Order: sequence, then C-alpha cells, then structure tokens
Amino acid sequence: MIQHPSFTIEDWNIRETELHLDVLAQTESIFALANGHVGLRGNLDEGEPYGLPGTYLNSFYEQRPLPYAEIGYGDPESGQTVINVTNGKVLRLLVDDEPFDVRYGRVQRHERVLDIRNGVLRRTVCWTSPVGRTVNVSSVRLVSFTQRAVAAVSYEVEPLDAPVRVVVQSELVANETLPAMGKDPRGGAVLPSSLECEEHQAEGTSGLLIHHTRVSGLRVGAAMDHHIEGPPETFVESQSTPDVVRTFITAPLQPGQRLRIVKFLAYGWSGQRSRPAIHDQVIAALSVARLTGWEGLLAEQRAYLDAFWGHGDVEIEGDPQIQQAVRFALFHILQAGCRGEQRPIPAKGLTGPGYDGHTFWDTETFVLPAVTLTFPHAAADALRWRSSILDQARERARLLGRRGAAFPWRTIHGEESSGYWPASTAAFHINADIAYAVTQYIEATEDRVFEQEVGLELLVETARLWRSLGCQNAEGQFRINGVTGPDEYSALVDNNVYTNLMAQHNLSAAAETAKRYPEVAQALGVDAAEIDSWQQAAERIFIPYDQRLGVTPQDEAFTEHEVWDFATTTPEQYPLLKNFPYYDLYRKQVVKQADLILAMHLRGDAFTPEQKARNFAYYEPLTVRDSSLSAATQAVIAAEVGQLQLAYDYLGEAAFMDLYDLEHNVRDGIHIASLAGAWTALVMGFGGVRIRGGMLSFAPRLPEQITRLAFQMVFRGRCLRIEVTAKEASYHLLSGSPLTVRHYGNDISLTRSSAVTRPIPLIHAGPQPTQPPGRAPVARSAS
Amino acid sequence: MIQHPSFTIEDWNIRETELHLDVLAQTESIFALANGHVGLRGNLDEGEPYGLPGTYLNSFYEQRPLPYAEIGYGDPESGQTVINVTNGKVLRLLVDDEPFDVRYGRVQRHERVLDIRNGVLRRTVCWTSPVGRTVNVSSVRLVSFTQRAVAAVSYEVEPLDAPVRVVVQSELVANETLPAMGKDPRGGAVLPSSLECEEHQAEGTSGLLIHHTRVSGLRVGAAMDHHIEGPPETFVESQSTPDVVRTFITAPLQPGQRLRIVKFLAYGWSGQRSRPAIHDQVIAALSVARLTGWEGLLAEQRAYLDAFWGHGDVEIEGDPQIQQAVRFALFHILQAGCRGEQRPIPAKGLTGPGYDGHTFWDTETFVLPAVTLTFPHAAADALRWRSSILDQARERARLLGRRGAAFPWRTIHGEESSGYWPASTAAFHINADIAYAVTQYIEATEDRVFEQEVGLELLVETARLWRSLGCQNAEGQFRINGVTGPDEYSALVDNNVYTNLMAQHNLSAAAETAKRYPEVAQALGVDAAEIDSWQQAAERIFIPYDQRLGVTPQDEAFTEHEVWDFATTTPEQYPLLKNFPYYDLYRKQVVKQADLILAMHLRGDAFTPEQKARNFAYYEPLTVRDSSLSAATQAVIAAEVGQLQLAYDYLGEAAFMDLYDLEHNVRDGIHIASLAGAWTALVMGFGGVRIRGGMLSFAPRLPEQITRLAFQMVFRGRCLRIEVTAKEASYHLLSGSPLTVRHYGNDISLTRSSAVTRPIPLIHAGPQPTQPPGRAPVARSAS
Repeated sequence: MIQHPSFTIEDWNIRETELHLDVLAQTESIFALANGHVGLRGNLDEGEPYGLPGTYLNSFYEQRPLPYAEIGYGDPESGQTVINVTNGKVLRLLVDDEPFDVRYGRVQRHERVLDIRNGVLRRTVCWTSPVGRTVNVSSVRLVSFTQRAVAAVSYEVEPLDAPVRVVVQSELVANETLPAMGKDPRGGAVLPSSLECEEHQAEGTSGLLIHHTRVSGLRVGAAMDHHIEGPPETFVESQSTPDVVRTFITAPLQPGQRLRIVKFLAYGWSGQRSRPAIHDQVIAALSVARLTGWEGLLAEQRAYLDAFWGHGDVEIEGDPQIQQAVRFALFHILQAGCRGEQRPIPAKGLTGPGYDGHTFWDTETFVLPAVTLTFPHAAADALRWRSSILDQARERARLLGRRGAAFPWRTIHGEESSGYWPASTAAFHINADIAYAVTQYIEATEDRVFEQEVGLELLVETARLWRSLGCQNAEGQFRINGVTGPDEYSALVDNNVYTNLMAQHNLSAAAETAKRYPEVAQALGVDAAEIDSWQQAAERIFIPYDQRLGVTPQDEAFTEHEVWDFATTTPEQYPLLKNFPYYDLYRKQVVKQADLILAMHLRGDAFTPEQKARNFAYYEPLTVRDSSLSAATQAVIAAEVGQLQLAYDYLGEAAFMDLYDLEHNVRDGIHIASLAGAWTALVMGFGGVRIRGGMLSFAPRLPEQITRLAFQMVFRGRCLRIEVTAKEASYHLLSGSPLTVRHYGNDISLTRSSAVTRPIPLIHAGPQPTQPPGRAPVARSAS
Repeated sequence: MIQHPSFTIEDWNIRETELHLDVLAQTESIFALANGHVGLRGNLDEGEPYGLPGTYLNSFYEQRPLPYAEIGYGDPESGQTVINVTNGKVLRLLVDDEPFDVRYGRVQRHERVLDIRNGVLRRTVCWTSPVGRTVNVSSVRLVSFTQRAVAAVSYEVEPLDAPVRVVVQSELVANETLPAMGKDPRGGAVLPSSLECEEHQAEGTSGLLIHHTRVSGLRVGAAMDHHIEGPPETFVESQSTPDVVRTFITAPLQPGQRLRIVKFLAYGWSGQRSRPAIHDQVIAALSVARLTGWEGLLAEQRAYLDAFWGHGDVEIEGDPQIQQAVRFALFHILQAGCRGEQRPIPAKGLTGPGYDGHTFWDTETFVLPAVTLTFPHAAADALRWRSSILDQARERARLLGRRGAAFPWRTIHGEESSGYWPASTAAFHINADIAYAVTQYIEATEDRVFEQEVGLELLVETARLWRSLGCQNAEGQFRINGVTGPDEYSALVDNNVYTNLMAQHNLSAAAETAKRYPEVAQALGVDAAEIDSWQQAAERIFIPYDQRLGVTPQDEAFTEHEVWDFATTTPEQYPLLKNFPYYDLYRKQVVKQADLILAMHLRGDAFTPEQKARNFAYYEPLTVRDSSLSAATQAVIAAEVGQLQLAYDYLGEAAFMDLYDLEHNVRDGIHIASLAGAWTALVMGFGGVRIRGGMLSFAPRLPEQITRLAFQMVFRGRCLRIEVTAKEASYHLLSGSPLTVRHYGNDISLTRSSAVTRPIPLIHAGPQPTQPPGRAPVARSAS
C-alpha cells in the first residue's frame, strides 16, 4: 500500500498522489472515516469504480444460518454479520451528460489525503471528459466526532476550459450490490439484499430512507439534506423510491464558476424503536448538523482532535515512517472507539466487513491498553458493552455446563457466532482477558463508579467461570484442561500457561474487589466461601515448567511435541492454516501468534528476567506470526529482554500491517488491534510502560535508529508527557495533582512544577534469537 | 422391538404375529433382505404405509456438498450419500376397486416371518375390505445369495367369502418421496429426487427403468418380469413412464381360487458402463432368474444357507433369546457381506440410509472377525475393496502431509466424507485396524495369493503412514501425538494406547511380511532401510503407564483429567453427545466406548492378566457405552478377566441392540457391527478364541445360565466344531487336515477321527466392577 510510490511520508497526513485502481479496495479501508457509531469506507464520491462499497453502523447486523456437515451440541446455529447499510456518500456527477468516471476520459490529477490532524478525507481531481471538457472536482468528507449520528461532504465542481452544464445526483442508496468475498476464512459472509424498505421520502433538497433487516429485525434510518451554492440558474429537485433517494442539482457553469454542495447525512438505528421514532431521530440529528453548518462541523472536529492529540500523541525522531504510521494508528483507534458508547469495538472497526464485523478478544487485549491511556472514557464504554451482554454470556456458560459467564469468541450482539469450536468456545481465555482489561482500566483511572457498577460483576462472573472450569487434583493443583490459548496452532490443551496465569489474575482480582465492596458483592450472590474458593484456586493454579529445557512450556504437553518442519516449509505456504490441516499444526511445536510471550507481557510479574530471556529465545524460532496479533507483543518482550533491534523490526511489522497490507486482506478493513500494537510496541515496548497494582512504571530504552521518543498519556486524571532519548528519560506532569511513578524500579515523584530526568541504564542482552526461516521480521533501518 | 409381545422366540425365525404401525420403520430394518449387492428394506408389498422406503445397491451413491461455518484446510467439501434406488418390491392390490391397505378395512390376521434358515421373508395377511370382502394375501420375498443381481417375490391372493375382481399393479418406481430424517447426527442426508431417467420400457409382463444420478454420474438399471398363474380371464398389460413402470394383472377370483404372481427383479449399476450395457446386463440377469424359476431360486437359497450354517452356526442351551439373536445376527452379517465382491460392508449393511450408507472402521474391527471365521471369502473381498481405494487413501495422506495411505474415516467411494475432523481425520487408528484385519485374515486362511496381491501393499502403505505420523523424541521413544482413539469422548490426544499398540502391530506386520516377499516389497519401493525404520518405530513405540494408579491410561494425559460428574448426570442426558458439548467431554475422564479395553482384546499380548483385570476395573466406572460398538468388547474382556455374569449382561446388550432397538435408531438400518458383536461376545468371549501368530487358541468359560455353547468355524481350510459346557470343552475337526490348537495355553492336536475333550479350569475373579450410575448393562437371567 503506502510503499506504493503514489504515497508520501508526512507527519499528519496519509497522502495518495495518484489513483491506482488495483489497490482501490485497500485505500477504501485506509481512507475510511468513522466515529465508533457510523463508519464510511473511503469509496469515491461518485460511487464507481469501487473495491467494496461500505457504510456501517456499529452493531447493526443481520443473522444468517451457520451450517455444519456434522453439528455438535452447543454449536451455534445462527451467526451475525455486519451489513452494508444505506449509502449516503454518493454524489454522482454528469459533465455535459458525460458521467464523471475515472475509468473514462482522462484523469489529469488525482489526490486523496486522510488529514488526521483535522479528521477529514480530502480529494481533488482534475478530469477531462471523453469529449474534452476539463473540470476540477474536490470534496472533503467527515464523520463527526462531536455529533455521532452525523457525516457530511463538501463537494465542489469547477469547469476549467469551457462552459459546461453539470448535474450532481446526490443519493441515499440501500441494498447496493456487493462483490463476492472469496474463500478467505477471515473475510465475512455476503448477505444478498437484506434490507426491506419501510419509508422513503424526498422533498426539495432533502430525503430519507427507513429500512429494516429481515431476520434480526433491526431498523435503520438515513437522511440527507443539502446546502447548495451555485449560479442563479441552479435547479434542485428530489425523488424517492424504496431503495434510492436522489437529489438532482443542475447548474450551467462558466470556467472559474463553481457549484458547491454541502451534503449533511444523519443515521440512526434501533432494535426496538418504531419507524416514526427513528424517522424523528434522524431528521433531528440532521437539523442540528445543518444548524452547525459545514464550517462549524470542521471546527468541532478540529477541537476534538486538539484534545485527543494533546493527551495521546506519540512523537518520534529518527523514523518519519513510523511517526506517520503511529499517528495513523491512533487516529483509526480513535475512529473505532470514541463514540461507540456501550457498543463494541470490532476487529476491523467500522472500516470493512472483514471477520463479519465481529468483536473478539483483540479489543480487550490489544486495543484497550492504548485506549485506556489515551481516551479512557471509550475503554469504559467498551467494557460497559461487555457488561450489557452478560445475560447472553451467562446463558452460554449454562449451555456449556459452567457457572458464571462465558463470553462469546466472536459476536456482534452477544451470542456466540463462531462456527469452529476448538478455536472459539475452547478459547476460554477471552473471559480472563476482559477481566484483565477491567482491572487495568480501574488501576489507570480509579473510576470507582465503574468498578462498582460494572467492573465487579464482570470480575465475579468470569471468576465463577474459571472456578467451575478448572479442578483441583489429588496433589492440590488447580488445573484447567482442554482449552485453547491465544496460539491458534495449538488447541484443546491442558494447562495453557497464558490461560492459567490470566485466570489466576481474574480469580484474585474478583476476590480482592469483592472484599472491597462487600455490599455490591453480596447483591451478586458472593459470599465468603466463594471468595475463599477463588483465592484458593488462584493460589494453587498449576503452571507447568519444563526442567529439561529450562523453559516454560506453552501448555503442559507442548515441549513434548515434535517441532514443525520449518526447513521444508516454503514461503508460499504461509499462512500455514491455508496450506496445512489443523490436526498437524495442533500436534507440533509451531506458534501462530504470541501466547507464552503474551503471558510474559501481561503477567510479567510471574517470570524472572532470566526466564523471560530464556523463554523468548525458545519461542522465537517457533513463532511464525500468521496472525496480525503477534508482532506488537513480540516487540514488547524483545524490548524488555534487551533485543532492541528485533523489537524495532517488530514495531515496523505492527505499524505497517495495514499501510503495507502485509496480510493481504486490508481490503476487508483495517486491523485495529495491530494498529494499536504500533502504539503498544512504542509505549509498552520502548517506553517500558506497565501498570501493576495501581503503580505506573517505566523502563524506557530506544533502538539506535530512534533518537527521541515522546508520548503523552492520561493516568488517574493526570496528563503526563514522557520524553526518551538514548541516554535519559524525562517525565513531565502536564496536568493534575502530584503522582509517584517508577523509573526502572525506583520511585520518582512528579509535580507540575518541573520535569524529572533520569538516566537510562545500560541494556544487556544475549544473542539475538532467530525466527523460522523466512519468517524474521523485515529488518528496519532508519530512513 | 422384539420384546414387543407380537414377537415370538424361535430358533430359526424372527416372527411378528401382529402388525404394529408404530414400529413399522424398525421392522423394515429387521426384516430387510440383502446379499451384499442388493438390499431391500422389509417394506410392505403394497408400498404403503411405510416407515422408510428403501432399496439399495452397494456403493450406489450421490454426492452432496458438505457445508462448514468455518472451513479448514483438508476438510472435505463433498460428501457421499447412499440413495434409495428404483423400488421393485411394490405389488399394489385392488380388491373390487378397494385398495388393499392395512390402515383401512380390517386386518384379521397379519404375520411376518424372517426365515433365516431358508433366507426368505414370508408374509400372510387375512384382510376384510371396507365393503366387507375378505381375502388372504401371502407373499414370500427373497434376495438371492446365488444370483447377486436378482430378487424375487411370490405373491398370492385368494378371496375367502365371495367372488372378487382383483387388480395387482406390480411396479418399478424411481424417485420415491422419502420422509425427513430428523436431526440425529447418526441419520443420513435425504437427497430429493436424485435420479434422472435415461430409458423406460414396458412390454407384456415385463418392464425396465434406467436412471443416472445427477452429480456422481452413476447409472442404475432395474428390470422386472412376472410369472402369473390365475384364472383364464386373467389380463396382463404393462406401461412405462420415466419414473414408474407398471404391470397390471387383472383377474376375477372365486372363493378358493388364487391369483399367484412370481415377480422377478434384476438390478445393475455402473459408474462407467453405457446405458445399452446396463440394459443388457439387467435383462440377462432377469432371464437367468426366470430360467431358474421361483422354486429353483428357493432351492439355491437353501443350499447356500446349508453351507453357511454348516460351518458358521452357534448353538446355545439355556438362553433361547440369545440363541435366536445370534442366528439373526449371523444371518444379517451374511446378508451384508456375502456377495459384496470388492465393495464395502457398510455400517448398516444394505438395510437403511443410516450414517449415509458409509463404511467405517467398524467393518474391519467388529465385523470381519466373524466373517473371517465363518465365510472368509467375504473378508478377503472387503479388504480387496480397501485395496481398490488405495489411490484415494494415498491422495488423502498426501493432502494431510503424510506418506503412505490415510484411509477415510467414512466413505462409500473412497474419498473422506466426514465433516468433523477431530473425530474422523484425527482417528488415524482406522489404518491400523485395516492392517490388523489383513493379518488376522491371512493368519486364519493362509491365503498367500491375497497376502501378496493385496495384503502386503495394504500393510506397507499403512506402515508408511505411521512412520511419518509419529516421531522419535530425545529419549528414543516413538510417539504418536494429536490423534483420536476409538473413544469419541476424547480427541486429539498424545499417545493413545490403542492407537500406539495397533500401529506397533501394523509396523511389525509390514516389516515381517515385506521380508517374506522381498520381490513384491521391492516393487512397492520398500528397501531394507525402510523395513528397519518400521521395526525400530515398532520397538520404540511409547506406551504410557500411570504408576500412581497402577493402570494404563487411555492416553498420556487421560488419568490427569477430572472424572466426569456422573452423579449429577441424569438418565435422560445419555447419549452424552446430545446433551453436552464436546469441549467438556474431551477434557474429562468419561469413555464413550471401549478404547483401552479394545486394545486389551486385540493386543492382549501387550498386557499381563493382572493388568487386564486392573485396567478393566478402572475403565468400567468411566465407560458409558454411548456407542453400539462397545458392549461386545466389554463382554470379551469381562469374560477374559473372569467377570462372567457381567460378560453375559454385555452379550445381551450387543445381541439385542437391534431387536430391542436399544439406541432408538434401528429405523435407519441395523447395526452390523453390534450384531457381529453378539457372535464376538460368544465366540471370543465365552469361547475365548484368539488368533495370534497363526495359532488358534481357546479359553472357554461359560456364565451359569448358558449350559452349553457350541460353534462351528473355518480355519485354514478346516471346519471345526467346539462344544463347551460348564466343566469341559470338546474340539472336533469336521473337515480338513490335522491341526494343532491351544486350550488354555496347552497345545492339542486335532484330527478328524475323534474329538478332544479338556476340562475347564476354575475361574478366579475379583469383585465385579461397577459402571456409571444407570449405565450398567441390563442384568441378564436365564429365561
């Protein structure tokens, strides 16, 4: 993608200087705009050509049957798939009756810019029609961070060489035809024309469509209105049909004369509210947007981003590509989560239909760390969504024969939507991952209201799951058998170390928090005996260790297994899951993604520095990174064990996952977790940031090529700025009351009056570990 | 079923004295006739009412897509399903224009008899029509053992009280409407109307239909002709349409006067031969049948069965129900396999569509032991079928990344048709099971032609699979990780003892046989190094042992797992797979079906008597027998460890699986493996028969209630008769040259001149083991 020569490296922009149709779908994902509620892919204004049209509303989905050749008890029979809702982006243009289409005539100039400082997508085109009329077309598109139901487009046409008559057809289109998704299991299902019209309306400059889904029974409304500036002869009328509303704007233009249209869009949906209620909701949002006006929306957008970058920016000296990539990453994370408001943060955000629009453990494990330290309110919202699906999770636990709650591996509405249980139902760790995110959020914010209203119940119900999933054996060990850890190239194993350590944390946190809020706990049915049973299970949890090799096995039997034959595996055979059957992957030592290494990050307290180094050296040659969820974690631990060049290489992989389309599926949407991984690799890796027991600690260390790293973060109501160079780190408290943090294990007290600077100790590291042949990250050198 | 009061206990018949429509589908399976090539369910002659119409040709199937919610590499995308072919059983009757239908008018008497001594199904009905005409209707149906393409029905009508005009419509019907199969995963798929007509023809008393399947492209021909005896006014004509051929036989009958029709049927199918070739093939078979005539067919059938019972009968004193059941069992095994001729023996024979008509490991492991010792030519045929699908098995092994051949878990045509890989692809033991059947057949027959033509290649290709599936670890152990053993309530385990012991046998047998036939081996690409590698793997195979418990674990981790909570499992929750998710079954100690116990039967040489007793006592309380493939094995080992009453109870369960419909699915067809289990429990269990290293040994012992057990068997060209009482066993060589066998470890020489009698030693046994609550076999007492 961005390595394409048509992209430039800039601090605050993703700029494409020429249009290349072969990567159109990928750029639609890269240039997508969203606010966590509404998402618009970066489709061209005129609708065609497209890679994949896409307009999404968070949690708006259709149901579809999940088929099985041989179904088993507990296999979900119905799945949920995000659907492309009414498209309001379309502004078709006719120039003297020639449709403006980049595939015809001649494109003299075409530039698109994702402006992440202002939160807009800009496009400028200079086009000569087949009959020789040249026009400048420019558009600016935004999805408002401040008005969550609202998007808007400012669209301008100007003839250059001769008078022309232009017609702009501005549309709302439901049930667009979608291209097939192919056989990649990471894609999503395509549901044909799934919206049924309930109301269509057009009048003057405005129009509205209301539809509902056939099976899931959700209702969606979309409305548009236009502010038009053109010559006095400009003529406007609107028409509606069940699936299309069109506003026609016709104007004769002289060279130098412009037609300018601001299109205001509003969306609303509900599973419960009536057609009239949705109708009123969208036209109300629309009128606020019109009242705010285009300039007003732009100003609000900028102000919102001023605040965000003010406490979340990451600055890098020495690597402008990484600088660009991490800002791109933070912007998309913000877009995915900032206005979700108790809706999930899906794996692809609202940028494409990949993974059916589902939310996985990625959110809590990979995305929320960044969110918690940059715009924490959204972390609370995402966890409140988990709380809102507790009933479905409790029902699932009951079906699975367990107590408490068993959160779905993948879902939109809360019900398990996974069709392959060994890599979903058995991946119980998601429950501990949610609990971990809860405790990290509380430690980072001291949000006691959240803790009592939401946090404790999530901790209690997940602890109950663990207590009833594991069992104590004759030797008193608390064992968790037959589960799948993060590494999806192993499954149904006994005592996965990641799972056991995370379950231990979950059980302890539930016990401690329940003791702190005895009344809330009592209301949840928790008594002293139950708390005891959690503590006992946590204390006695079995963590296997391989004495022979001196390493921690990923699971009890892992190191007994044959090592994958990497020598005869060719580069084209990756990702392995597309070329080898699961039975063979599962029974061998080959790691799809960080598993024990992730345990060493999240539960670093359970390993000595020597163990970390030995384990990292053992797992590196086994880890193929066939998942986008791996590089960032490997970067963090590589940095921790002193392998700074390797950490830097992994940072590159995480940061460029989407911009370089490393997994060849960015067409289906960007990888929010991998983007967050770029932040994690920098802040947790090179910044050495950890939060444990409420204490914020740092162990900064830079690779040679990065000469300065500075980042802001919010913690317990304060805003901090940390600046790191090769030799020293300085800590600035930008706002809030004094705070004690740790630098390399030593407390330092921060006040707003002055920064504290500390030297960075010398880093000692062993030999750099190797990766499977051909699977080393691309060696990164300063540009 | 047979416990129904309308069934009687007779030595050589299964007699139903009244018709009960609520068990119609079950009796259609019980009363099915077949010869391994053609199978007719016991549907009523008049076609309706029916439980499930069924006419099957061995290996005649249609393909269907296998769907997946999330497909994995190597998951088969196409399945095979046996289909109901052209029905030639139908003889509709009109009595003065009232259709003869047991649901209308009054059935005065209705009797059906499966005559297993003569190989026919007899039916007699006395019926009064709604308007008061009474007729006797009787039919005798056979599927010829001697003319494999042929079936025939003798049908008679006789008015009792008044003259009537009768019309018989004798039909061939393709694409019958079938009832839905429900959601039981053990049922099969129903493919709507899957035959396309290529030719239909009717002339005089005869007719013919040729169809082909839409996807699998197989061609089937069915032809009929009639021999008619009636009054001179009898009128006959025939008509044909694409899916129906009808011969109308109209006759006025006086009381006491009869209309008798013999309907001759011939079937043929091919995946390659042309329409004219199939046409000629079926009419040729039909003309031989007509030439033989009804009486001739009956005589041939009787002669065939005289020979079969002469060397295969089992006689029991003290339990007439078991006597009846074991003969019923042997008859159905004969029907399933005798004329298969290099086609498979499916799990349901040719008696119903259950399990999609697939063949599993059941054939080699549970059915062939009985076949090998009673009609061994059919065992050779079934194994020659395995040889014929070696190409598909080699292709599958390649897809799975292995050498040699990987036989399909379930198939008709040789391709894997299983849609749930943890309980199919991973169940590699099927390959060793086939190899074991090969060596047992060779040991029991000394068939050196088979050994060189077929046996060695099967042994070599399966040995290659094992060699490439397992791996040697640092301690020199040869380990087989990540496989599923016979017990389907565990999956993807390391070092399943059954699998490892069977693989060991397979590797050794391949090595030994290759050495005996160096030229054949060389032609198969086997060299000395490969033979060495098999021997080394066999010698070093890892067999785990739990020192703490003093038992052999089913697999390496099995005894580390939590024991299933049997106390809170209610009787309605069995079979567990219908009420609990696999993840939970897999990670606990609960055994669906004999696994380690089966290893102790087939590889009894690998365990001491004390280990057998301890292991049996350990696994009995864990084994729920949710599979019909368990009771017989438990009977054999119970007998071996001296638990004779328990063995007798298990014998009852195996023997009555279908007659009592213990698994509630006999409607879909009978369980050939469980029927064979009745023979196995008696001959291998109470007879103590084993074949090992070419030596036939006996260790007979009877439960109190059986006062005498006698059985014939064929071994290395001899026929033997063994008679056992409580105190002694006598061995008779009925035909063939002298033979040395073993009685309780001591050689005895048998010649045709006289029987040898030996005393039975006293049996010592520990306390009787218990089963999970509610899962003990029904205690059997002599009736």
